[in-house]
Amino acid sequence: MVGDAIDPWGSSTVKDYNRLRQEFGIEPVAPLLARFPRPSSHLSRGIDFGHRDLGRVVDAIDGHAPFAVMSGIKPTGDFHLGNKMTADDMVYFQSLSKKATVYYSIADVEAYCDNGITFEESAKIALRNVADLLALGLDPDRAVVYFQSQEVRVMRFAALFSRGVTNNMLKAIYGDRQIGLYISALMVAGDILMPQLPEFGGPKPVLVPVGADQDPHIRLARDMAAKYREEFKFVPPSAIYHRLMLSLNGDAKMSKRSVSSSFTLDDQPAAAAKKVLSAFTGGRDTVEEQRRLGGRADICPVYDLYRFHFALDDAHADRVYSECVKGVRMCGDCKQEASRLVKAYMEEHRKKRDLMMPEAKRLLSKGTKGFAG
Amino acid sequence: MVGDAIDPWGSSTVKDYNRLRQEFGIEPVAPLLARFPRPSSHLSRGIDFGHRDLGRVVDAIDGHAPFAVMSGIKPTGDFHLGNKMTADDMVYFQSLSKKATVYYSIADVEAYCDNGITFEESAKIALRNVADLLALGLDPDRAVVYFQSQEVRVMRFAALFSRGVTNNMLKAIYGDRQIGLYISALMVAGDILMPQLPEFGGPKPVLVPVGADQDPHIRLARDMAAKYREEFKFVPPSAIYHRLMLSLNGDAKMSKRSVSSSFTLDDQPAAAAKKVLSAFTGGRDTVEEQRRLGGRADICPVYDLYRFHFALDDAHADRVYSECVKGVRMCGDCKQEASRLVKAYMEEHRKKRDLMMPEAKRLLSKGTKGFAG
Repeated sequence: MVGDAIDPWGSSTVKDYNRLRQEFGIEPVAPLLARFPRPSSHLSRGIDFGHRDLGRVVDAIDGHAPFAVMSGIKPTGDFHLGNKMTADDMVYFQSLSKKATVYYSIADVEAYCDNGITFEESAKIALRNVADLLALGLDPDRAVVYFQSQEVRVMRFAALFSRGVTNNMLKAIYGDRQIGLYISALMVAGDILMPQLPEFGGPKPVLVPVGADQDPHIRLARDMAAKYREEFKFVPPSAIYHRLMLSLNGDAKMSKRSVSSSFTLDDQPAAAAKKVLSAFTGGRDTVEEQRRLGGRADICPVYDLYRFHFALDDAHADRVYSECVKGVRMCGDCKQEASRLVKAYMEEHRKKRDLMMPEAKRLLSKGTKGFAG
Repeated sequence: MVGDAIDPWGSSTVKDYNRLRQEFGIEPVAPLLARFPRPSSHLSRGIDFGHRDLGRVVDAIDGHAPFAVMSGIKPTGDFHLGNKMTADDMVYFQSLSKKATVYYSIADVEAYCDNGITFEESAKIALRNVADLLALGLDPDRAVVYFQSQEVRVMRFAALFSRGVTNNMLKAIYGDRQIGLYISALMVAGDILMPQLPEFGGPKPVLVPVGADQDPHIRLARDMAAKYREEFKFVPPSAIYHRLMLSLNGDAKMSKRSVSSSFTLDDQPAAAAKKVLSAFTGGRDTVEEQRRLGGRADICPVYDLYRFHFALDDAHADRVYSECVKGVRMCGDCKQEASRLVKAYMEEHRKKRDLMMPEAKRLLSKGTKGFAG
């Protein structure tokens, strides 16, 4: 089990979503789908494959009770498609209730410790990241965006939680790691539980939308919520898990380190469109074969672009899939279409983001002020 | 070596100061004594038994160059005699140069994590602790006193340093510990190195006066100073080591947990005086034997009271010692005298401390402000 721990830091992948569900107790989303009158594309397209305690959040939505949606970003560069997925989830769940508040942690301590990025550089990168978030639809009036380096509460929690875990617990969750990664994990637990402090309105459901590979962080945060329940009255945090996109070059997970594996929302639209054209696909060796056997959409990163981000709607995503697997759709045309969609999306997004820069600045400089001393 | 690591947290003791010197590279103080025109009682009475890089601090004093004196307190209760020893050292070294600044960390994060003391309680306790420090002679105009819980710089360093150590390094220094203690140690390293940040005037010698059992913290801080020298231009921190007092009940180290083992500067003077009267001594079984063989001052906590704190001057401490070992001084009389000295000292100190409360409040609310944003 230890040797088999999921690695939230690596570029390793999670191939077997069923294993996650069975082994770690992640529940399937399907039984709850009917409670979402207007499901997000992640829900309707099966991208969100599992959850923990999502029912508690749906109850809060239905009962007009306060809840939080929590996530964060390590400001090491531009906003990539994985960040966009989390952002889309945050925006969606925020939109479901006037009582929803988004918490977004700029993990500049990590960026500094792991990547040597100064706090000043992080602040610049974060400004664009937050503008991206706003362009994607975040309502700034119900959002708290903060720098981890300025949030003593997160660090106090990390210190406190470090006394509540044993080395063996951490090993069981994360595998045998160096202390730096453990501390980083304890800070994430601090981020996740901070919205339940009295100054932020006290205990409440907190939904953390994450990629499947981030489950260890959710488990640690939930363990800490249980361990310190008496003192803080923590509600165990909830999580919704999305599948990971295939890398454009055919690898199992996109990596910031590999330029060809993905693009960011800050890339030139034309450059991103070009990357799409040279992406790996699930196509067959010959056109004839493709017509006869159909394409392999399930292992195709171009199909993932449609499904995860750029299809116009669910019907469009479905059509691409069925045309592909029936052998009606050829990779060349399919890439051309995806490429056009990506370019158009990015041109539009870029305009919106530029307009959002002043608001991003305001949101970042507000930080946790107004909520807490 | 690992199994043999010194334990800075336990009530274990350091019996063999020579081993510390030989095994861990702590230097004897004697060769530097001549450079102190007005040695402290700790220096002149052999209480300070060793150092690391003290020469660098003496050079700064002689050259009128800036240096820092750094220490801290875990605000779990009143100011005990161990705290007083560190305080006496801080006050002494601060008095040697107008260019000396004292940094004092109120380790309220530790008090909270380890002892469940809230930050509010810690703040109250710390106020009295700082008043004690002022009553002992601290010059507030060259002192920075801060709460660890409010000092993001310390926590950032802890996070950064956690990436600079391996689990094996920590094991070698501290033994095999749970992660909570390692994090606590990394925060201490942050405390020790913080005075060298640009906002505090940049790199400089920093002297940390400590009990012999705290050497692991010094070694870790020095390791981190070396590891991050390029980025921060750290000067390796210096340390001066004092011997540990014997416990009043004859144990090797005073313990906050054992009421009879010591007293604090907040105890009622009469109660403290009474504790002295019932202390363990190095006396012989009978008066006759004592006259014949002499007392054992070297294992006597009452003699330690004279030597470490309450003798009027060096000559007085010497006289107590020689009268004892020559069999001239009987334990009953000796305790009576010590008891009177303790009572008088504490009555006087209490008055001074009460007068210092407003200044303590001012110093604590100033924190690191004025030095750094």
